[in-house]
Amino acid sequence: MQELKEAIARDGVCIGQDIVKVDMFLNHRIDTGLMFRMGEELAKRFADAKPDLILTVEASGIALALTTARAMGDVPVLFAKKAATVVQSPDVAQASVYSFTHKRENIIRVDKKFLPKGSRVLIVDDFLADGQACQGMMALCAQTGCEVIGIGIGIEKGFMPGGKNIRAMGVNIQSLAVVTGIEDGKILLADD
Amino acid sequence: MQELKEAIARDGVCIGQDIVKVDMFLNHRIDTGLMFRMGEELAKRFADAKPDLILTVEASGIALALTTARAMGDVPVLFAKKAATVVQSPDVAQASVYSFTHKRENIIRVDKKFLPKGSRVLIVDDFLADGQACQGMMALCAQTGCEVIGIGIGIEKGFMPGGKNIRAMGVNIQSLAVVTGIEDGKILLADD
Repeated sequence: MQELKEAIARDGVCIGQDIVKVDMFLNHRIDTGLMFRMGEELAKRFADAKPDLILTVEASGIALALTTARAMGDVPVLFAKKAATVVQSPDVAQASVYSFTHKRENIIRVDKKFLPKGSRVLIVDDFLADGQACQGMMALCAQTGCEVIGIGIGIEKGFMPGGKNIRAMGVNIQSLAVVTGIEDGKILLADD
Repeated sequence: MQELKEAIARDGVCIGQDIVKVDMFLNHRIDTGLMFRMGEELAKRFADAKPDLILTVEASGIALALTTARAMGDVPVLFAKKAATVVQSPDVAQASVYSFTHKRENIIRVDKKFLPKGSRVLIVDDFLADGQACQGMMALCAQTGCEVIGIGIGIEKGFMPGGKNIRAMGVNIQSLAVVTGIEDGKILLADD
């Protein structure tokens, strides 16, 4: 997606050899117009998939999941939670996810009643790097008997193994921009 | 807002005397259409306020902030973060917030460069109960020299002190639904 690639090139900040910081428009400050156009583009790419719901994980996946859901005709969004609450349902599906950014293990949880057996689920997240979050969400779907009909991603780090590993399972991943590497402090982007 | 009140009455679950669980449509599963209509209604109520940006806090404030931002002509959204990341900016504003739901203290943070001095800020959150989150966001705005032009809320717990305390400071709070209490397992709602 050209507009997203331009935003990454203009506002993305490299930290070391493997971190791309895009908090100017994606996961701290949100460029509202761009976020909606990203959702419209993901909706186009999964137009034939007819998901019953979109699954994401808090917090930074929520915005793209919601704009995609809007563009797909207001399908519901379910966001997996990372912290147990005092009002948690006793009937949850959960999976363990290591966060590359926060350097810690998180448990992600959904109330099973919101992932009814047999649902067609589109997973959406802002980033795909080592694939931990997506594989965690796939595990939630497996536990509840739901079918993952695809994965929509804002920015994929093509130099990390997540995308390759999950595509090898036969899952259709659509990434709106792919960062292929960082060279001399410059973010390299794949052609569309 | 009538549609929201009906959703609370239909799908809200009371736990004890003070907890209203609305994870069917607001803060776990999201009813996408309703969330957009809530954003449109908040935008109407602050139509003359002309904010430069909308400030919320992760995770469950993000959806309502984004739909409100959309209805206000794609103003940017900034969501305060609760966890420090390995790529955190050295120049943050932060405030301490006690979470009623999670029974723990959180530090909320924003990168100061995304709250430029003099900005007109509309604060949006899904819930207002004891007012800790809103007061934390007001503190972030005070630290960065920004003006809070109002607070837009999905559901206010009118029997908790947050709304009263903040209104006493002269802040314009608009809540789309006000829960006045829980009686015999039934959620009581204020008239519009």
